[in-house]
Amino acid sequence: MLIVMKQEATPENVSAVVRVIEELGYRAHALPGANRTAIGITGNPEPVDPGYFENLPGVADAIRVTKPYKLVSLDARPEKSVVDVGGTRIGGGELAIIAGPCAVESREQTFATAEFVAKAGCTLFRAGAYKPRTSPYSFQGLGLEGLKILAEVRDRFGLKIVTEAIDPANLEVVAEYADVLQIGARNMQNFSLLKAAGQARKPVLLKRGMAATLDELLLAAEYVMAEGNYSVILCERGVRTFADHTRNTLDVSIVPAVQRLCHLPILVDPSHAAGKRHKVVPLARAGVAVGADGVIVEVHPQPERALSDGPQALLPEMFLEMVEELRRIHAIVHQRDVALV
Amino acid sequence: MLIVMKQEATPENVSAVVRVIEELGYRAHALPGANRTAIGITGNPEPVDPGYFENLPGVADAIRVTKPYKLVSLDARPEKSVVDVGGTRIGGGELAIIAGPCAVESREQTFATAEFVAKAGCTLFRAGAYKPRTSPYSFQGLGLEGLKILAEVRDRFGLKIVTEAIDPANLEVVAEYADVLQIGARNMQNFSLLKAAGQARKPVLLKRGMAATLDELLLAAEYVMAEGNYSVILCERGVRTFADHTRNTLDVSIVPAVQRLCHLPILVDPSHAAGKRHKVVPLARAGVAVGADGVIVEVHPQPERALSDGPQALLPEMFLEMVEELRRIHAIVHQRDVALV
Amino acid sequence: MLIVMKQEATPENVSAVVRVIEELGYRAHALPGANRTAIGITGNPEPVDPGYFENLPGVADAIRVTKPYKLVSLDARPEKSVVDVGGTRIGGGELAIIAGPCAVESREQTFATAEFVAKAGCTLFRAGAYKPRTSPYSFQGLGLEGLKILAEVRDRFGLKIVTEAIDPANLEVVAEYADVLQIGARNMQNFSLLKAAGQARKPVLLKRGMAATLDELLLAAEYVMAEGNYSVILCERGVRTFADHTRNTLDVSIVPAVQRLCHLPILVDPSHAAGKRHKVVPLARAGVAVGADGVIVEVHPQPERALSDGPQALLPEMFLEMVEELRRIHAIVHQRDVALV
Amino acid sequence: MLIVMKQEATPENVSAVVRVIEELGYRAHALPGANRTAIGITGNPEPVDPGYFENLPGVADAIRVTKPYKLVSLDARPEKSVVDVGGTRIGGGELAIIAGPCAVESREQTFATAEFVAKAGCTLFRAGAYKPRTSPYSFQGLGLEGLKILAEVRDRFGLKIVTEAIDPANLEVVAEYADVLQIGARNMQNFSLLKAAGQARKPVLLKRGMAATLDELLLAAEYVMAEGNYSVILCERGVRTFADHTRNTLDVSIVPAVQRLCHLPILVDPSHAAGKRHKVVPLARAGVAVGADGVIVEVHPQPERALSDGPQALLPEMFLEMVEELRRIHAIVHQRDVALV
Repeated sequence: MLIVMKQEATPENVSAVVRVIEELGYRAHALPGANRTAIGITGNPEPVDPGYFENLPGVADAIRVTKPYKLVSLDARPEKSVVDVGGTRIGGGELAIIAGPCAVESREQTFATAEFVAKAGCTLFRAGAYKPRTSPYSFQGLGLEGLKILAEVRDRFGLKIVTEAIDPANLEVVAEYADVLQIGARNMQNFSLLKAAGQARKPVLLKRGMAATLDELLLAAEYVMAEGNYSVILCERGVRTFADHTRNTLDVSIVPAVQRLCHLPILVDPSHAAGKRHKVVPLARAGVAVGADGVIVEVHPQPERALSDGPQALLPEMFLEMVEELRRIHAIVHQRDVALV
Repeated sequence: MLIVMKQEATPENVSAVVRVIEELGYRAHALPGANRTAIGITGNPEPVDPGYFENLPGVADAIRVTKPYKLVSLDARPEKSVVDVGGTRIGGGELAIIAGPCAVESREQTFATAEFVAKAGCTLFRAGAYKPRTSPYSFQGLGLEGLKILAEVRDRFGLKIVTEAIDPANLEVVAEYADVLQIGARNMQNFSLLKAAGQARKPVLLKRGMAATLDELLLAAEYVMAEGNYSVILCERGVRTFADHTRNTLDVSIVPAVQRLCHLPILVDPSHAAGKRHKVVPLARAGVAVGADGVIVEVHPQPERALSDGPQALLPEMFLEMVEELRRIHAIVHQRDVALV
Repeated sequence: MLIVMKQEATPENVSAVVRVIEELGYRAHALPGANRTAIGITGNPEPVDPGYFENLPGVADAIRVTKPYKLVSLDARPEKSVVDVGGTRIGGGELAIIAGPCAVESREQTFATAEFVAKAGCTLFRAGAYKPRTSPYSFQGLGLEGLKILAEVRDRFGLKIVTEAIDPANLEVVAEYADVLQIGARNMQNFSLLKAAGQARKPVLLKRGMAATLDELLLAAEYVMAEGNYSVILCERGVRTFADHTRNTLDVSIVPAVQRLCHLPILVDPSHAAGKRHKVVPLARAGVAVGADGVIVEVHPQPERALSDGPQALLPEMFLEMVEELRRIHAIVHQRDVALV
Repeated sequence: MLIVMKQEATPENVSAVVRVIEELGYRAHALPGANRTAIGITGNPEPVDPGYFENLPGVADAIRVTKPYKLVSLDARPEKSVVDVGGTRIGGGELAIIAGPCAVESREQTFATAEFVAKAGCTLFRAGAYKPRTSPYSFQGLGLEGLKILAEVRDRFGLKIVTEAIDPANLEVVAEYADVLQIGARNMQNFSLLKAAGQARKPVLLKRGMAATLDELLLAAEYVMAEGNYSVILCERGVRTFADHTRNTLDVSIVPAVQRLCHLPILVDPSHAAGKRHKVVPLARAGVAVGADGVIVEVHPQPERALSDGPQALLPEMFLEMVEELRRIHAIVHQRDVALV
């Protein structure tokens, strides 16, 4: 059930609706938009009687939701959401570029990478302190020490930190240091982790699972929103197919598919899809051209020395050229004058 | 590194090797076999010098492991492992049949199902108390109350309980009630959960992820074993493909592929693959015929009333016929005389 | 449109309906069954008015077909079809075993293989004279010379010949020599070839394409039947998935899915799916256990010398053991007494 | 074997090498490049002795080919090939846009579509006269009548005609009317058709099969080239995956993968991948952004009346906007000044 408020509804009108929902024992999710506020109801085991709301002041409509998801849907919020990360806006016609090494390996490597990311004019830095690795014997990240290095990077370069949380207990620790909590592809249906992320008060970057359908991706985001955290950024990073010329098949078509149903911003991760450096830039261009709100890419000052995923990390100069190309393509897609960018 | 002991090595010889490994700061995993014991070493950041072991009494060989996994491998244990669940053996030429409803829905439904599972001569009962569901708005299981009902089922019918754990904190609770800890397909690469399962002292049933390769499945099992829990049962439950005539494509070919590399038993779950009742029995037969050590299937006394996955649950009479067919096929695969079964 | 005749309808009644259909300018396909004959109509650009038929003598019903296929459907023929190949029945509760080398390489190799196939009590021999190969530089088969060797095999050992046709012109030549015309997976949607096969008067073995859905497979068979050839045998041979432990993923679940919709017999080809000999026997067992009407397998007296697909060819003794196992499993699936087999 | 000629080699030197190859009974394929000519040898059952060539005048090197393909490879021709279609160049830094309806349905519809394709400044027109359809009961194209309409379109609008051939006999007819012979995805491994296309003297547009690997695509092109037709254009049109939000998953990553190995131009077909109009433009942009040499798209003046694939056909105004966007993105990818385009 979605309660759609009239354009002229007052904050008091909204509060009154929320109060009724809570008195019924359910949870209210007020989602303010440019023209009107919608209030989603969750926690109701049975359909809610619209009669409770129809005559309340300021209520325009009470809509039965027929899709499997509610809060992520354009029905709940017809305008696209913009996620604010300490002043950097993700979505809303901006081009977000999140860059950094696969993992925090040392203070030196992390600072060196952060330096050229900042110089390229980017404001969002990615690096893993906790690494979910296929093998128990692979480097699992520096852990808390890594988080502390990332906090230093924020202080030193003014970059906002995007880093991964791997279980509910760990998420609490990561949330103390990170600006954006990343949930990796392998954890897209780790529902305990999604609920914990929903209870955190930091934006969440949610990567599509390697075999996740569109509905499953949207419902994973719904798990986060249903807990009250509405700052969710989706991310396509390649899916498993028979194709053997690429590590994962970047499914750019999910971007317009998401945008037709859902108000959340969506990024593309060309690095994990490509697996090889020479394909990263073309795939990043494809991601922005298809309409994504930005990219998340791996860069490394000395990829041949990286402890994980070195072959897919961009070299500094490739990264700078890519950023320039992406900005020009983004301008075309968003039909602004290149001269004004 | 694997230290292979001579056939005539004494327990003291094994202990001495373990001691050296631990003094080096690593972890020793003694895997006794029919003819010899092998001792796996984990926790070593660098290759270990075989010189530490070669001259110890009882040591036959120190083998460098070149595959990505060590403890799950036939190199570590050339005989197939048998997992003992309170007297029922999984693997080792036995046919394991784990049956029960998708979820514990009520005491009545659970008892009714348990009764005919027990009557069919089965000793292993499956039912979820914690259900990982694609939607946050779907029934999520009865939780602790469900576990308590399962404990009653064990007391009343003598069935051993197989039930799912969904995160590390939850696993501790589940381990108090369950005989086998199930890790679901969506959590196959939830490495925190795998580590927690490795620290538990209960057997683990590990389902293959929907897009997991053979190596990824074996490495997920390796995560559990590397923590010291060697009672792991693998399970194929269907993978994601383009095919739209089935919910998931049951990949029976992974059974001989696993058996060629790994000593752990492997089951097949035809219910989640099929999605529809009429395909469950044929797929169960295929699973046993391809060589699996058994099946895990969903049964329900009144599937039309099930809160989850009703359409795939077998009716009692179908289940009984299936068990009979599976026993006869299993006997052929294992080349015993049907007359003796 | 399907015209279903009454059980007591006479051949004259059937002829009268066929005549009306042909006078309308359409094609009539009379499909006699155990209890009644159905007459499928094809070639009609628009739906046919049932009024033309409803009052003809012997007509029970005129049914509008809503599925995309007509003639392959159980609506057209509720009993399973049996394809007769010179006395050997495929379908109808029989276990068909088609065996032979990948390709005819020489008279000696073909005769040696045929000899042990015949000794195993099999009556159907497979071998390619025209080989569709991924590379233009691979061995493309002996062509006409190969067909002549196959004709000799038939004369010498009494085996029926199953061999592939690769284009419409070629099919005419192959049809002169073969008992069953094979259409390979890569040609499953080579519609010109399917039409040519429909005009031939020999049974057709149609392999599922590597990415074909159930509907596409059935519609490919419909192409053959729509041309008047009703002797079609389907064959699952593995599909393309992400799985890297097998050449193709044998999708055993398509067998019960086909059987629920379609009256044609269906075989399983474990050799092309497995790619490796040690998986062929387990997959063949799975195919028979899931309910397939038989298997088509590659055998070779000296696989290490084979010009194509040697690693997947069974050795003679493996083949003999497999045949014995398959017969016993088939007996269980078809619920006959093992003692009587 | 590839014979690489010196930069200063004369035409007589090349002819002499060709003569030696032919005297050995093999086929010579002279592939002239910007800086040197390479001569591929095919038809040799065994490796060729380089000694035959090393001392001939003008020969720089005789290279053993280790990849499965020879003539498509950058080893044979280090510069990208440009396919000339009556003055329009495909490849070589040009942006090719091939547009038109799925099928020729009538003279009126075809002319109406051709008119706005020509007005948009495009010179390549696509439309099917022979349609490979999944169902035998679907519209199969106007056949020869359709080809004649297409010939009229060429005369009237100066557009070059791209149209599909479906079997070897049909290809001869199509080649009389078409400027480019299209081979559809379902026929990518119809080797008889590929050989026929290789013997034609018209450029070939070869679509990637729905489950074709990179190697299989390149080897299909090799089939055409090995017959002496070196004007081959590749095309990605989406592959089969589990994803259900799109008809096929457009695999943009194959574009840079092809370009790293092969000198042939490659296009992207967003229409068949998308299945729905609103995704066609974003996917076309992604295709050009990833580096493709152009796109092939379906347009229709009245898509709601189309006999096939209406929902994916672009409306005229959407097409015009798309062309403009694609030109600007192409300019960025090829690093020319937008102002100069």
